Amino acid sequence: MTTANDAGIRKALVIGDGSWGTALALRLASNSIETTLWSAFPEQAKRIGDARENVKFLPGIRFPDNLHTSADPFGASEGVDLVVSVVPTQYVAQVAARFEDALRGDLPIVTASKGLEIDTFRTPSQILRRVLGERTICVLTGPSHAEEVARDLPASVVAGCEDEDFARLVQTAFNGETFRVYTTPDGYGAELAGALKNVIAIAAGICDGLGLGDNAKSALLTRGIVEIARFGRARGADVRTFFGLAGLGDLVTTCMSQHSRNRAVGEAIGRGKTLQQVLDEMSMVAEGVWTTKALFGPEANEDLVSMPIAEQVHAVLFEGKDPREAVLDLMRREPTGEMDGLFEGLDA
Amino acid sequence: MTTANDAGIRKALVIGDGSWGTALALRLASNSIETTLWSAFPEQAKRIGDARENVKFLPGIRFPDNLHTSADPFGASEGVDLVVSVVPTQYVAQVAARFEDALRGDLPIVTASKGLEIDTFRTPSQILRRVLGERTICVLTGPSHAEEVARDLPASVVAGCEDEDFARLVQTAFNGETFRVYTTPDGYGAELAGALKNVIAIAAGICDGLGLGDNAKSALLTRGIVEIARFGRARGADVRTFFGLAGLGDLVTTCMSQHSRNRAVGEAIGRGKTLQQVLDEMSMVAEGVWTTKALFGPEANEDLVSMPIAEQVHAVLFEGKDPREAVLDLMRREPTGEMDGLFEGLDA
Repeated sequence: MTTANDAGIRKALVIGDGSWGTALALRLASNSIETTLWSAFPEQAKRIGDARENVKFLPGIRFPDNLHTSADPFGASEGVDLVVSVVPTQYVAQVAARFEDALRGDLPIVTASKGLEIDTFRTPSQILRRVLGERTICVLTGPSHAEEVARDLPASVVAGCEDEDFARLVQTAFNGETFRVYTTPDGYGAELAGALKNVIAIAAGICDGLGLGDNAKSALLTRGIVEIARFGRARGADVRTFFGLAGLGDLVTTCMSQHSRNRAVGEAIGRGKTLQQVLDEMSMVAEGVWTTKALFGPEANEDLVSMPIAEQVHAVLFEGKDPREAVLDLMRREPTGEMDGLFEGLDA
Repeated sequence: MTTANDAGIRKALVIGDGSWGTALALRLASNSIETTLWSAFPEQAKRIGDARENVKFLPGIRFPDNLHTSADPFGASEGVDLVVSVVPTQYVAQVAARFEDALRGDLPIVTASKGLEIDTFRTPSQILRRVLGERTICVLTGPSHAEEVARDLPASVVAGCEDEDFARLVQTAFNGETFRVYTTPDGYGAELAGALKNVIAIAAGICDGLGLGDNAKSALLTRGIVEIARFGRARGADVRTFFGLAGLGDLVTTCMSQHSRNRAVGEAIGRGKTLQQVLDEMSMVAEGVWTTKALFGPEANEDLVSMPIAEQVHAVLFEGKDPREAVLDLMRREPTGEMDGLFEGLDA
């Protein structure tokens, strides 16, 4: 197989020093790419660099010699062949603005953030293009707890980009013996799937909190994928993407896992906490909360696609609806044909 | 909503007194249908009837007055409007033969067994038709742990039948406030999905046994659904069925659950036991073991559809392959496009 260096990727920049950004930087570094992990905070960049470990977000994983840290957009961008953005979605615009003059105009970017900008309904790719100008962007997403990837446990993800050559380049950059990268041309769908699945993960957490059992949770998950696929289709995404690693795969990981923040938010609320109480107790970002808000925000309403599960999640999170009542409302809907209309007219 | 009695269903027979047969009989009885639960063993029928509870397979759930037990095919079949077969797949032919003269020729049947006959690759519907003659058969399947359904925890399933009127009748017979029945015309696909997902569940169990983490397990599950959908398509089933409750939904429940026998078989093998040791310790049937065998049996080989996960499960179960080696072989395959060819030509 072609190595990343053979393919011309010798130097990479990862913007964002959270657990996933750090895991991806480690992945690139182990493919012999000189990699810089950029932090928005100089003291954090220094602390990580000195400790040779991201003590805060990915403790216990030692950095190799070819993994560096920086808080300087210009120094970090110098001579790089590949840029990866892994910033919480609500901060993408603001962080990208700091790189506006540092990144040359034709440099393609990989984005690995999962979410939607609340007021604009923009995906991370769309935000990056607005701030940094039109360029090729590849979405890297899928079921990938950072801790497991960093420990070399097996994982499979997708690299989604219309420019299939770039998707394959990204595949080569990240691929490893226990890290399988599939390609898809539907980057937008992959990005929507990665964001919207968090709304369903919150619903699954609510099921857990209410003690409703495995049947309910998996039915919710299955119906949830159909619902977000239907929405994605109305937005121009490919329905199939939602049933692949970016949607289904990631949702399953999120719903099974004790680590998942989105599921945990739902579980706490199912047990009787308020959203405010839950958010006050969390140190990390639960993107699904904001994606739910974006889904019913000013820019999303045009679509008129039925999203019964997301509607109930929104009502529970933001309108104080009783979670048990929300689940009962879902069960009381008139039963229908299972995939009514979902795949109609799909021709490839 | 129309009640079951309004729709002409007043008397039902459930063939098979395992946990799922018992839960379905309870479901029908709570829709005011006089229901008989048939056991192959007279002493077991009597024990359940006297105790008003299936102490062996579904303890703790009290039988209502309109739920009866019997071991007599003729008495149990008298005047019934609806027959449900819930027998372990390898026994369907033999049990159905006992009902050959008892069930009138045009009586439609619901089947809720999940598996394939090892040597013939026949689904339960196909077996029933061979023994009892051509008739309408509806497949009832989906994520449904019997214990949870019997305790009225929420569940959603599908009723799959080409005859959509009969599918809707089955929907009416079983539907309840916490038991949602969807319909689909693709009964064969639903049946194949319900059987084949157990092979993937064994693979997921192997992941658990090896401690490979959530990323690996959900990627396996996602790729597993694509793989069995591809196989189903080659056999004439509708690809979409595999991504609904019958395939994906049921697989997720199976993979999340500590109760699942198929997952448990895989886990024990991942921890180092042999298949024989595992089977010796189980009192119930793990259909997936026999479905895996059927998949590589004399009647299945014609299809030449790539099933990399099922192949590895077969090698581990029946050829003594080391489970860790099997997982590594899966990871080492050349990465590809994610849904290559799967949905091609799908026109509705």
